[in-house]
Amino acid sequence: MIDEFKFDINNTKFLKDIEYPSDLKKLSLPDLRELSDELRDFLMDTISRIGGHLGSSLGVVELTLALHYVFNAPQDKMIWDVGHQGYIHKILTGRKKLLHTIRQKGGISGFLKRTESEYDAFGAGHATTSLSASLGIATARDFQKKKFKVISIIGDGSMTGGMAYEAMNNIGLLKKDMIVVLNDNKMSIAPNVWSLQNYFVDLMLNESYNRLRNKIWNLTGKVDKKNSDRLRAMAAKIEGGLKGVLTPGMLFEALGFRYFGPINGHNVVNLVKTFEEIKNFSGPLLVHVFTEKGKGPSYAPKHYQKLHALNPFDKTTGIELKKSTVPAYTSVFGEALVELAKKDDRIIAITAAMPDGTGLNKMNEAIPERYFDVGIAEQHAVTFAAGLSTEGFTPVVAIYSTFLQRAFDQIIHDVATQKLSVVFVLDRGGLVGADGPTHHGAFDLSYLRLIPGMVIMAPKDEGELRNMLYTATLYKRGPIALRYPRGNALGVEAGAFKQLEIGKGEVVKEGNDIAILAVGSMVHNSMKAAEALEERGISAEVVNMRFVKPLDSEMLRRVFEKFEKVITIEENSILGGFGSAVSEFAEQYGYKNDILIHGLPDKFIEHGKPEELHSDLKLDAKGIVETVVEFLMRKKVTS
Amino acid sequence: MIDEFKFDINNTKFLKDIEYPSDLKKLSLPDLRELSDELRDFLMDTISRIGGHLGSSLGVVELTLALHYVFNAPQDKMIWDVGHQGYIHKILTGRKKLLHTIRQKGGISGFLKRTESEYDAFGAGHATTSLSASLGIATARDFQKKKFKVISIIGDGSMTGGMAYEAMNNIGLLKKDMIVVLNDNKMSIAPNVWSLQNYFVDLMLNESYNRLRNKIWNLTGKVDKKNSDRLRAMAAKIEGGLKGVLTPGMLFEALGFRYFGPINGHNVVNLVKTFEEIKNFSGPLLVHVFTEKGKGPSYAPKHYQKLHALNPFDKTTGIELKKSTVPAYTSVFGEALVELAKKDDRIIAITAAMPDGTGLNKMNEAIPERYFDVGIAEQHAVTFAAGLSTEGFTPVVAIYSTFLQRAFDQIIHDVATQKLSVVFVLDRGGLVGADGPTHHGAFDLSYLRLIPGMVIMAPKDEGELRNMLYTATLYKRGPIALRYPRGNALGVEAGAFKQLEIGKGEVVKEGNDIAILAVGSMVHNSMKAAEALEERGISAEVVNMRFVKPLDSEMLRRVFEKFEKVITIEENSILGGFGSAVSEFAEQYGYKNDILIHGLPDKFIEHGKPEELHSDLKLDAKGIVETVVEFLMRKKVTS
Repeated sequence: MIDEFKFDINNTKFLKDIEYPSDLKKLSLPDLRELSDELRDFLMDTISRIGGHLGSSLGVVELTLALHYVFNAPQDKMIWDVGHQGYIHKILTGRKKLLHTIRQKGGISGFLKRTESEYDAFGAGHATTSLSASLGIATARDFQKKKFKVISIIGDGSMTGGMAYEAMNNIGLLKKDMIVVLNDNKMSIAPNVWSLQNYFVDLMLNESYNRLRNKIWNLTGKVDKKNSDRLRAMAAKIEGGLKGVLTPGMLFEALGFRYFGPINGHNVVNLVKTFEEIKNFSGPLLVHVFTEKGKGPSYAPKHYQKLHALNPFDKTTGIELKKSTVPAYTSVFGEALVELAKKDDRIIAITAAMPDGTGLNKMNEAIPERYFDVGIAEQHAVTFAAGLSTEGFTPVVAIYSTFLQRAFDQIIHDVATQKLSVVFVLDRGGLVGADGPTHHGAFDLSYLRLIPGMVIMAPKDEGELRNMLYTATLYKRGPIALRYPRGNALGVEAGAFKQLEIGKGEVVKEGNDIAILAVGSMVHNSMKAAEALEERGISAEVVNMRFVKPLDSEMLRRVFEKFEKVITIEENSILGGFGSAVSEFAEQYGYKNDILIHGLPDKFIEHGKPEELHSDLKLDAKGIVETVVEFLMRKKVTS
Repeated sequence: MIDEFKFDINNTKFLKDIEYPSDLKKLSLPDLRELSDELRDFLMDTISRIGGHLGSSLGVVELTLALHYVFNAPQDKMIWDVGHQGYIHKILTGRKKLLHTIRQKGGISGFLKRTESEYDAFGAGHATTSLSASLGIATARDFQKKKFKVISIIGDGSMTGGMAYEAMNNIGLLKKDMIVVLNDNKMSIAPNVWSLQNYFVDLMLNESYNRLRNKIWNLTGKVDKKNSDRLRAMAAKIEGGLKGVLTPGMLFEALGFRYFGPINGHNVVNLVKTFEEIKNFSGPLLVHVFTEKGKGPSYAPKHYQKLHALNPFDKTTGIELKKSTVPAYTSVFGEALVELAKKDDRIIAITAAMPDGTGLNKMNEAIPERYFDVGIAEQHAVTFAAGLSTEGFTPVVAIYSTFLQRAFDQIIHDVATQKLSVVFVLDRGGLVGADGPTHHGAFDLSYLRLIPGMVIMAPKDEGELRNMLYTATLYKRGPIALRYPRGNALGVEAGAFKQLEIGKGEVVKEGNDIAILAVGSMVHNSMKAAEALEERGISAEVVNMRFVKPLDSEMLRRVFEKFEKVITIEENSILGGFGSAVSEFAEQYGYKNDILIHGLPDKFIEHGKPEELHSDLKLDAKGIVETVVEFLMRKKVTS
């Protein structure tokens, strides 16, 4: 269901006639100022109704306008880091009338996407990829002797990722013609964790600079009195020269960039002039633009504009339109961790720039000294945790399933080979909904399972999440992971913490005709399916396997001996995941049961509401019922 | 088989009495100089006989001595990045008499290893992990109110990895007491690709600095003639002051470090004095040490000392003691790529600091303009390739199987979701031998297989490698990977390039009793096994599957219909790999054959010669014969 389009575009002076960048170029510079306001209203109005990433795009209204005014997309390539800052770009590149469909099933993506528009030169949902991709595009351009511009727009948050540094390092060596716009809102997703930013702020105050300044003054003082004033004036000029050297630009110049800025990112006229001025310069250029994340119209409440991703809200009161009474898994985890950490001072919480998204903001409030936000630096987060665990601590690294892919090697090389006790907590395991293919946690059971010594758990509900977390903090024999989905938990009451036996599942419903082996979020759906199957006279046994690794071999033997047909259900790729593990087990012990591996298919799943996607993929109760019925009717191919 | 220990330790003046760091502390500073020479002789002598990483450790003789002289390991923690620079550290920490066993089965590891010694505070085989681990250890120390020092030793090569930047950024914020020794040999593994190093060298020549310098001179020129000379002298002093500001240290200071250096890394007395001086300073300290990689005794040929990892060689002539007549897979790939690239100018080669190791040095020689070494920056390498492919190029990213784990997310997020045509060439797929668990390519078939749209190939010999590479460069429908083992190819003659049909295998030997489905290196071993089985009266059919994804479904159907028993063989983890894929296929289509998944077990495999490891794991011909015979005798558990 796509909401009806309500914003009255005909009441705008300029926006009504803007479909493509070519329309922009007919406007004067002052017109752009007015258009900025209209864009801001349009964006606020739409996102307040349908939800989405608001703050980032509000911050780049003028920047986006200026870029499209000066450059010629799609010939010139704009590469937007992460892409959630790209809503204005979408509005200005043929998708104005589709904005109200953003992040909804069948609608446009919340991120940039090559298949959606030729203006989207490179897609992204994860941070810090734009500079590498841009260098590739610029290099390809030069091989083809083409002339287009390559412009990357990257936030200060993304600059905390090591990949940005790898790319800048390489750009500095290759010296390609590239424009990097550093969109510095001093906020990133979480409060600032970029130490270089402190450098920018503190530079004028720093010791070596002051030492030099004093030296100049002392030297001029030694000259005969007559010339003293004159020389002090000269020194001031020298100092001015020094300041020119010791700007933030120095650092980027060290990396081989020519630096411009800092520039006010909300002065569209100045932005246009700056881009006009530099567009014919060659080599790597860095334009440092200061913006205010969530810079919205005056009528909108500031605290809502600042937020990263929103549910629909009332745009004048800022109150969310619908609010669940059931807690999200995220907050259940956050609260449980605080409870445990209060009793166990070995527990240390680590996030990679997602304190709110992971629930670790609660640790930050309750026990800030044992809370670490390392920036968008998943690799470092994991190896930092490995270091902590060598001294007997219990680091709990909470990273979204899809983002933990960034630290795959560190989990293997730094944690698992050394059998270090790091707890991995993967939020957003399974389909995340509106954020789509770049954000679904579709692979974690597969990519964690292949790691020797890794324990992998998935809770059936929030009570089990709490117990699994407790179990993980007590484990201390190597890496252990738990993963749970985005969204609300089931609303079960949380009891006292209970330690679970590693590698043991539970039968949650007995049955006779077929066994459903489920993990995590799929236990609940399987239970509902089993109830519906009973009504059709089919008696399904439902097992909550709890552990994807190690498997509950005793349970599997019993199931294989009791049932001819066994179905495995997981919210993870059917390749190499839980079902694959059960299949491997069956082969290893020679069981000839009929096994159906049910889960996410081997393709990237588009965006949509989780319930819509579950329905499409037959992972809701109804779909599971259909799958079971079909499976029961399936004949053996060979004896 | 461990070689006999030959170096006569009794002929040394100091080394004979050194077992542990405490023995060092009895020596005077001049004694350390002499001990350095003895260590160098000892190292050269041993490694020339048994092979190993020589250059890195020769470069850090004095540095390692100085560190162990000043600090108190194991209370103080030394974290050696990568670890192949750790041989001297091993000699000085109880393992002198085991050096001759290094990298050999049952002997000590070629890298640092926590289970090997309490002096090895953190193990590593991959680069750039030390700073993150050290920050974890330092943080843990402070929680426990302990007092030990944390010293990381990291090379300039490792500094090209983004993880170093992520860590330094975080260290700068947390301001922990840490000593980082930047071991700058201006070489890294491949010639320098670190743009910041150019910065160090060029700083005094750079434009903004010169601009300022001119400004000072112009200003002094405007003063009345009488004072001119005096003022120029003053300006020179100001300039001196400026130089103090504009040191390499500036950059590290920007990141929150206190900078010391640069220091000559071969002056052990100065090194000791420096470490003595700073050891009581607090906060993050960076000591910049210049060393010469491969600084060996005068009698040893320089070109051999410079090499990264060596086979045994004559230490006076530098000639390798044994040399194969069969080409290595690595050079087959390198040459084939040059051949193809000469005909197809869309092909671009990318390495992450391993031109020799991957064979891409041949591209660098033949077509340098289409060769890119991006530094130890696998993440950037992959996304850079993704950018290139958006413009129609065919980037060939050659990275060792184990190192490509670093770019797992980029393969998924930047390449596969956008169906970009990047060719991944994975050398060292399977067991690498002496480098052990951190370097085995044990997981690639599993971690690549779960990626939607990925094509995965493994050649049976060098002829097929060439054809697969050719096929990959023509594919252009998304990501495609080929993986092959370390070491020598089979010696088959290479014919003209032939395009392979995607997803089609071949029967290499027909048989009646059992089917062996093999991939890559295991095809040859399976053929030899099948011959041996014939002698026992067992007729095995051997299939070279070629493609792990997509599977040859027609072939599998035929095999499942013809044979009751099917064994899959791969040099990859049995979890989620090729055999797992075959098992998933059987479940999907209801085949009830007896399937045995044979491959690497679910554990980290220690170091040893590949043939020893293959024998232990029953992956050589003899082991496959035993496995097949046992499998044929296995009874079904259920009907």
